[in-house]
Amino acid sequence: MKHSRQGAVLALLASLAAMPLSAQSTYDRVDPMIGTGGEGHTFPGAVAPFGMVQFSPDTDTTCVIRECYSHAAGYRYEDPTIQGFSLTHFSGAGHSDLGDFLMMPVSGDSVPLEPGNAGKPGSGYRSRYDHATEVARPGYYAVKLEDRGVQAELTTGTRIGVARYRTMSGAPSMHLVLDLRSSLYNYPGKVLWSLIRLRPDGIVTGCRQTRGWAPDRNLCFAIRFSVPLKGHAFVSTETDVPYKGFQGPGRGSDAVAERAGRALVARFDFGPLDQPLEVISAISSVDEAGAIANLASEPGDFDAIQAKTAQAWRAALDVVKIDAPAPMAKSVATALYHSLLAPAVASDADGRYRGPDNQVHRAEGYTFRSTFSLWDTFRAEHPLLTLVQPASLSSEIVQSLVASRKDSPHGILPVWQFQGRETWTMIGYHAAPVIADAYLKGIRGFDADAALAAMVASATYAPYGGLGEYMKRGYVPIDREPEAASKTVEYAYDDWTIARMARAMGRTEIAATFERRAGNWRNSFDARTGFIRARKSDGSFRTPFDPTAINYGSDYTEGNAWQYSWFVPQDQASLVGALGGDTATIAKLDAMFEFDNSKLDYSHAEDIAGLIGQYIHGNEPSHHVAYLYSYAGAPWRTQARLTQIVETQYRPTPDGLSGNDDLGQMSAWLVFTALGFYPVTPGSLEYVIGRPFLNRAVLSLPNGRQLTVIADQLDDRHPYVGKVMLNGIPVTRAYLRYDEIMAGGELRFTMQTTPNTAWATHPKDRPYSASTTR
Amino acid sequence: MKHSRQGAVLALLASLAAMPLSAQSTYDRVDPMIGTGGEGHTFPGAVAPFGMVQFSPDTDTTCVIRECYSHAAGYRYEDPTIQGFSLTHFSGAGHSDLGDFLMMPVSGDSVPLEPGNAGKPGSGYRSRYDHATEVARPGYYAVKLEDRGVQAELTTGTRIGVARYRTMSGAPSMHLVLDLRSSLYNYPGKVLWSLIRLRPDGIVTGCRQTRGWAPDRNLCFAIRFSVPLKGHAFVSTETDVPYKGFQGPGRGSDAVAERAGRALVARFDFGPLDQPLEVISAISSVDEAGAIANLASEPGDFDAIQAKTAQAWRAALDVVKIDAPAPMAKSVATALYHSLLAPAVASDADGRYRGPDNQVHRAEGYTFRSTFSLWDTFRAEHPLLTLVQPASLSSEIVQSLVASRKDSPHGILPVWQFQGRETWTMIGYHAAPVIADAYLKGIRGFDADAALAAMVASATYAPYGGLGEYMKRGYVPIDREPEAASKTVEYAYDDWTIARMARAMGRTEIAATFERRAGNWRNSFDARTGFIRARKSDGSFRTPFDPTAINYGSDYTEGNAWQYSWFVPQDQASLVGALGGDTATIAKLDAMFEFDNSKLDYSHAEDIAGLIGQYIHGNEPSHHVAYLYSYAGAPWRTQARLTQIVETQYRPTPDGLSGNDDLGQMSAWLVFTALGFYPVTPGSLEYVIGRPFLNRAVLSLPNGRQLTVIADQLDDRHPYVGKVMLNGIPVTRAYLRYDEIMAGGELRFTMQTTPNTAWATHPKDRPYSASTTR
Repeated sequence: MKHSRQGAVLALLASLAAMPLSAQSTYDRVDPMIGTGGEGHTFPGAVAPFGMVQFSPDTDTTCVIRECYSHAAGYRYEDPTIQGFSLTHFSGAGHSDLGDFLMMPVSGDSVPLEPGNAGKPGSGYRSRYDHATEVARPGYYAVKLEDRGVQAELTTGTRIGVARYRTMSGAPSMHLVLDLRSSLYNYPGKVLWSLIRLRPDGIVTGCRQTRGWAPDRNLCFAIRFSVPLKGHAFVSTETDVPYKGFQGPGRGSDAVAERAGRALVARFDFGPLDQPLEVISAISSVDEAGAIANLASEPGDFDAIQAKTAQAWRAALDVVKIDAPAPMAKSVATALYHSLLAPAVASDADGRYRGPDNQVHRAEGYTFRSTFSLWDTFRAEHPLLTLVQPASLSSEIVQSLVASRKDSPHGILPVWQFQGRETWTMIGYHAAPVIADAYLKGIRGFDADAALAAMVASATYAPYGGLGEYMKRGYVPIDREPEAASKTVEYAYDDWTIARMARAMGRTEIAATFERRAGNWRNSFDARTGFIRARKSDGSFRTPFDPTAINYGSDYTEGNAWQYSWFVPQDQASLVGALGGDTATIAKLDAMFEFDNSKLDYSHAEDIAGLIGQYIHGNEPSHHVAYLYSYAGAPWRTQARLTQIVETQYRPTPDGLSGNDDLGQMSAWLVFTALGFYPVTPGSLEYVIGRPFLNRAVLSLPNGRQLTVIADQLDDRHPYVGKVMLNGIPVTRAYLRYDEIMAGGELRFTMQTTPNTAWATHPKDRPYSASTTR
Repeated sequence: MKHSRQGAVLALLASLAAMPLSAQSTYDRVDPMIGTGGEGHTFPGAVAPFGMVQFSPDTDTTCVIRECYSHAAGYRYEDPTIQGFSLTHFSGAGHSDLGDFLMMPVSGDSVPLEPGNAGKPGSGYRSRYDHATEVARPGYYAVKLEDRGVQAELTTGTRIGVARYRTMSGAPSMHLVLDLRSSLYNYPGKVLWSLIRLRPDGIVTGCRQTRGWAPDRNLCFAIRFSVPLKGHAFVSTETDVPYKGFQGPGRGSDAVAERAGRALVARFDFGPLDQPLEVISAISSVDEAGAIANLASEPGDFDAIQAKTAQAWRAALDVVKIDAPAPMAKSVATALYHSLLAPAVASDADGRYRGPDNQVHRAEGYTFRSTFSLWDTFRAEHPLLTLVQPASLSSEIVQSLVASRKDSPHGILPVWQFQGRETWTMIGYHAAPVIADAYLKGIRGFDADAALAAMVASATYAPYGGLGEYMKRGYVPIDREPEAASKTVEYAYDDWTIARMARAMGRTEIAATFERRAGNWRNSFDARTGFIRARKSDGSFRTPFDPTAINYGSDYTEGNAWQYSWFVPQDQASLVGALGGDTATIAKLDAMFEFDNSKLDYSHAEDIAGLIGQYIHGNEPSHHVAYLYSYAGAPWRTQARLTQIVETQYRPTPDGLSGNDDLGQMSAWLVFTALGFYPVTPGSLEYVIGRPFLNRAVLSLPNGRQLTVIADQLDDRHPYVGKVMLNGIPVTRAYLRYDEIMAGGELRFTMQTTPNTAWATHPKDRPYSASTTR
C-alpha cells in the first residue's frame, strides 16, 4: 500500500472509529471481585494503575505458609469475616507474601488486639460482613464491618492508601488497630523485626523486616490521621525474649513513643467523632523518611485521591473500548484492569528504591518498577503493555530490569522479583524476551548495550539453574538439575530472543552464539515418543517416563510432557515437522485437549487448574497451545479451541478465573484473545490470528492511532472466522504483524457458523517460525 | 598582671618548657594491656585515635548476657585461648555489645567452623596463646596462635582494620573463618538477621542486625584480601526455620555467592601461601556500599596503615609529655591513651551515619561521633578533651549530640549512645554539661541556639526518667520512678549547666528557670541524717533507709547514700553548709573513706569495685569526692586522699584498674589528678587543685600554648603540697581557672613531707560554688 492511499484509508477508518460505542466506559464494566474466589488469587481492594499500594481487605491471615494458598491475595470471597485492610497484595500470584500493615477500625469501648479465629466469627478484632454491602471499583472498595460497627471505604494513590471510616450508629469512640504481626503466608518467625513510633507531628511511622517469599524484605510505613490522636498503645506480644535491654522514656504500652520487636500491635484512640476518620498511609521499601515523603507527595483527602485515581483508571482502561454482551464485556474489561497492576511502582517519590542486593539505590529519570512474575508475564502480559500503555512504561520496565541486574549480587536479571527483592521462583531468564520484544518493537529510552549485556550475563551465569551444564551439553541434564526438560526448552527460547536483539543491534557474534543455542530444544525432543523429555548427563532420556505425571522436582516445571512438549515459540514450524507434519501435530493437539483425565489425580499440585484434557489453562505452559493448530494449517481448529477455552475458563464471577491470574498473564491472554490475535512468540513481532470475542473494540494505541476491531455477525452461533479484512484488504495469512497493528485502522472479522477450512492454511500463510525467512 | 609583663613571663617559661624531658615519648610508655584483666574492661587490640574500628582479640564470646560481664571488651587477660579478632569493642564499658565480625585465621587442612569450648583449649577454631608472644602498642597488636599455626598482627585506620597473618611453619594452606554468630554479650536470638556475599571483584560484604544493648543495630562490613581467594563456603547453622523459601543460584554452601540468615559462618580458602595474608576490613553502620567506600578511603597495606596510625598516636599522646618514674608514667600515659578512644567516629567516609531513629543521615561538614557514655564522661573525660584535643573535636561532639537530638524519635539528646543508637542506659541528661562546658570555654562551630534548645528539650521531656514529676514537684518521687534520689540531684546539676549557658547567651528567661531548678538538690537533702535521700510523692523520705544499701532499682543509681550525698557540683559550698559546716563535712568525708565494710556484701552489684570504705573509685559517683575537702577548707586532706586513691586504684598491670574504665572517665580522672587539678564542676571553668603525681609534664594546649607542670621534690616522702606558683606568682586559692590554664606557662608545685594546713583554707580561696560571686 502506498503511503498516500494508506493515509486516506486511515482517515476514513478514524471517522469510523469515532462512531459511538456502547455508552458504558470500560472503567464502568470492571468488576474487581472477579477472581477473588476459587483460585484466581486476585484482590478486590483499591489500587491505582501499577500502584505501589494495593489497599485491600484480608479475610484471614492466621493460616501458616502452604495452608495459605487460597489466601494468597489476602481476601477470599467465601470467607465470612474480614480481618482487616492491608496495604500490599499480589494480583493472582501462585505463591505469596505481603499483606503488610494490616489495619482494622473498631468503634466502641472494647478494642481487641488479637485477630480472633477465622472459624469463630465474632472473635478478636475481625468482623463479619455481607457481600451485599461491598462496593468494588477500580481504585475504590467499601464494606460494612458488622461486628466493628464501622463503614469502611478504601482508595489509593500511587504510593498511598486512604481509608475513610464511619461509625454506623451513634457516636461511640473510634479506634484503629494496626497489627504488625499480620502477613500473608505467615509463619512463626517470619517477622524478623519491626518498629513503630509516634512522631511529635502526629505521624506514625515504622518498618518491618520479614523473611518470607522474599528472603529478607524491608518495608516501612507512614500513617497520618485526619483527626487528632487522643491516645495510643504500642504493645509487644513477643514472648521468650532472653534480653530486653534498657527501657526508653515512658512506662507501659500506653505512653511509649516507640517500640521495636518481633510481635507488635498498636491501638490508636480517637474518642467519639462527629466526622469520618480518614487514615492516609504510605509505604516505602527504603526507610521511614521515604514513607513520609511518599505520604506528602500525594496531597488531598479521601475524595480527592479517589477522584484522581478514578480518572487515571478511566484513562488507562478506555484505551480499549469494548462493545460486547455484558458478561463478555465485564470479563474482558476486568482482564484489562488486572493486566494494569504489575509491574508495580517500587521506587519512592524521590526515586530511591531497594534493589536485589537489599541496598538503597536511586532511579534517575525514571520510575523503578518491580513485581516481575516473568515466567508468567513474558508471554502475553508484557506484549499487551506495549499496545495499551505508553512506550515509556515498557522503557521503564527495561530500565528497571537492567538496574536490577546491575544491583544483583549475581549480576543477572530478575527471575521473580517484587519490591526489588529476588525470590528465585520459577525458571528461565525471561527478562530476555521482555527486553527483546520491547527493543524489536522500537521502544527506546534505555541503554540497549547494557540491556543486551545483562541478557547475555543472565544466559551465561553457570551457577543459575544448571546453565553451566546447559552451555556445555546443549541441554540441562536431569541428574544434575531438577526440571531439566522445562529449563532446556525455555532457555532455548530465551536464547533466541537474545539472538534476535543482538542481530538487530548488529552484534553478530552474540547473535550467532545464541542462534545456535536457540536450537537446543531439539536436544530435549524425543522423536520416539514425540515429547519433550528430560535427558540425563549420559545422553539417555530419564525413565520411567509418564507424560501425565506432575510432581515438584520432576522433569518439568509445574507441568508434564503434555504441556511442555509444545514450547518451541521460536520455531513452532520445526516442531510441527519433528512431530511428523500437520496431520500428526493436529492429532496430537486434539489428543491433548481430549485426554481422559478420569484416572489422574493432580490435587497435590497447587497450580494445576482449568483442565481441558491435558490442556491446563490455569497455568502458563499451555497458554499458546490452542494457537498452534494454525502452525499446522488448521486455524479453524484454533478458533474452536479458543471458543472452548473462553467459554469454560472465564466467567464474570468471583470464582470466574480457572487459575491464578499470575500478575495479569491469565487476563492478558483474554484481552488478546478477545481482540482476535495473540503473541505466541514475543520477539517475533507477529500475532497469531485466533477469533474475536467482542463485537467491536477500539484500541487506542500508544502512538496516538486507533485500531478498531469489528467482528461482524459475532454470536454464539457464529464462532468461526469466515474472513479477515485489515483496512479493507483481505488478510489471507494466519498472523498479523506488529507494524500493521500499530498503523491502526480497522481489523474486521466476518464470523460464520462453520469453519472456513480454506483460510490461511497454506504453509506460506502460517505464523512465524525461525525456519522461514521473512 | 599586665599584659606586657605576662608576655615576658610566658616567653621565659616557654624556654623552660623546651628543656628536654625524658627521651621516651608518651606513645612509647602506653601499655594497652592495662585494664584488660580484673574488671577494667579495656581491650588490648589496635585502634586509631577515636577510631570507628577497634580491632582486638576476643578470648571468649560464648558466654550469655550477664555471664559476660568479665568479657565486656571481648578480651580477658586471664583466659587461656583467643577465639578470634573482631572489629568493634568498647573501652571499659560496664555493660556491653559489639564484637562484630569475628575472624580467625587457620592454617592447615582442618578448618573448624565452631568456636569450641573456652573450658577446652584446643577445641574448635579458638587457639591457645602465650602472653609472651603478645605485643600491644597504640594501633598495633600481635600474638602467636599456637593451635592455628598462625602469627597474627592487627592494625587499624580510622574506619578500617588490617590483619596480617603468617603461617608459623612450612607452607600449609591458609584459611580465614568469619563467624557472624559471634558477638559480645551474646544470647540466642541476638542476631536478628545477617547477610554475607562474595562480590565479583573479590570483596566480601555483608551486614548484621543485632538486638543487644542497642535494641536494633545494623552494622555492615567489607573485606578485601591481599591474595586471590581459592574457595569459600557460606554456611548457615540455623535450625528450626519453618520456611526456607526458594534457593538462589548454586547448590551447597561452597558455591553460593550470598547467604542470609540468623546464624552464618564463612570459610575463606587461600591455599598455601609464600607471603603473608593481609585482610583489610571496613565497617559501616549505614550499608555495604558505605563499608566498601570506607575500605577504599584508607588505601595502603598493613605497614602503611600501621605507620600512619602510629604517627597519629604519637601526635595525640605527646600532647602530654611526662616525666615521672616508670610505673606512674606508664599509668598516666596509658590513661591518656584510654581517654582518646571515645566518642568514636561513627559516620562513614562520605558523612553518612545511622542516627537514634535508626535512619540514615549525613553529617555535613563534620564527622559524626558516637559512643557517648555520658553519665561517666561528662565528669572528667569531656573536660580533658577540651585541653588535649583541638577545639574542633569538642565542636564535632556537640554537633553530633545536637544532630542526634534532631534525629531522636523523642527529640532529646543522647543518654548512652553508640554507633548512633540509643541504649537508655544510666540517668540524667549529661549531654547538657558537655555542651555547656564546651560553650563556656569559648568553643564554637556549632549552632548554639539549636544546642540550647536541645538541652532544654531534654530537660523538659516529661516521659523521660520522671521528668514530668520532677518539673511538677522539684524532685523525682521514688514511688513513681526508681533511683529517684540520684535522678533529682543529677537533674539539678544538669539544669545548672543549662542555666549557665543560657545566661552566657543572654537567654535570661531560660537561665532563670534553670537556675531555680539547679536548687532542687535541696529537695532531696535530708537534714536529719545528712544524706541525699529519695522522697515519696507525699513528701516524706522513703523508709527503711540504709545508707550502705546498693541495689538495682533502689533510691540510687549504682550506688548508695554515701556516694550520692556529695553530688552537688553546682553548689558544693552550700552542701558544706547544709552538712553543718567545715568540721562536720570533713568528719563525714572521713567517715566515708574510713567506713568499715566488713559486714557488707556488694558482690551482686557489678559496678561496685575499688572500695575505700564507702568511697568507691571503681564507679563514677565518687570521682569528685576526694576533692571536696578543699571546699571545707582542708585541701591537705584532699591531697592525702588522692595519694591514697592513686596508690591503691591504679597499677600499670593488666589488672591495674580498680573498675571499668568507662570510656575514658577512670583514665581522665588519673590524667587530671596526676597533673594536679581536677574539674569537679564542668561548666564552672574551674579546676580544683589537688596534688600532682608527675615530676614534670608539658601539656601542649589546643591554642598552641604550653603549660608545664612541675612538682619540685616530688616523691613518696613528699606527698603534700607546700606551695603552688603559676608563672612565678603564688597561687593561694584551691583552684585554677580555665583561662589560666589555657594561657600556658608554668605551674610549679613545691611538695613537702607534711601537710600545709594554712594553704587555701580561707573561704574566699575555696573552689567555685553557686553561692559565691566571681
